[in-house]
Amino acid sequence: MEECIFCKIVRGEIPCIKIYEDEKVLSFADINPISTGHVLIIPKIHAENIWEIDAEDLVAIHRLSLKIARAMRATLKPEGIAFLQLNGKAVNQVVPHYHLHLIPRRAGDPKLTMTEWKLVPGDMSAIMATARKIASAVE
Amino acid sequence: MEECIFCKIVRGEIPCIKIYEDEKVLSFADINPISTGHVLIIPKIHAENIWEIDAEDLVAIHRLSLKIARAMRATLKPEGIAFLQLNGKAVNQVVPHYHLHLIPRRAGDPKLTMTEWKLVPGDMSAIMATARKIASAVE
Repeated sequence: MEECIFCKIVRGEIPCIKIYEDEKVLSFADINPISTGHVLIIPKIHAENIWEIDAEDLVAIHRLSLKIARAMRATLKPEGIAFLQLNGKAVNQVVPHYHLHLIPRRAGDPKLTMTEWKLVPGDMSAIMATARKIASAVE
Repeated sequence: MEECIFCKIVRGEIPCIKIYEDEKVLSFADINPISTGHVLIIPKIHAENIWEIDAEDLVAIHRLSLKIARAMRATLKPEGIAFLQLNGKAVNQVVPHYHLHLIPRRAGDPKLTMTEWKLVPGDMSAIMATARKIASAVE
């Protein structure tokens, strides 16, 4: 999709802090992280949501999510990881390109809402340092 | 697992309001729904979380999630569906057996928290009626 921000990232027209990439999927750090290590996984082929995504792309995303969850555990040692994937404006899907959130958390972290949160830009050098750690541990 | 409540449901020792079942996975209505049509999908083989689940069971869960999301759209006509999957007590995973939440929503529904919510039993006849609708549309 010409104007889709995630498609622009896939095409390299907008930079991203990459965690992993293969022929079907791309994973990168959320630059408005709601926790340390907040990562997205998207299909490279544009699909707005769960109703549009190709089944094989969905499978590839979730196979990768296993690897990234393991890499997060090895490097960040979180006490939990929330997986969140929103479909439709009624559940606050902001970018209309399917994306799976992986949100590592510690017990003392502030509570999170599911259906809305403020987009607050994170510290880019901290995001990059964390992303490098995770990326280095993806097997 | 002997004492796991979801394993007891898989074995038929505790009843559930079934949406779908095959050799790998089971889907049933959440009896403490946070929205109309709130459904869970679990692997039949016990795995506590994303770090323990077998990759093929994870794939089966997400292939089924596509079918159930379509069935929800056809029958409930929600304005969105949130997919949520929690790993670890730090993100409020209550039952230590991997489960994917499918939470259909309408724009006017109350905001949801991701990391905690009260378990409020729903009206069983309403849950059953909604579950029958969804189940009848799973292809």
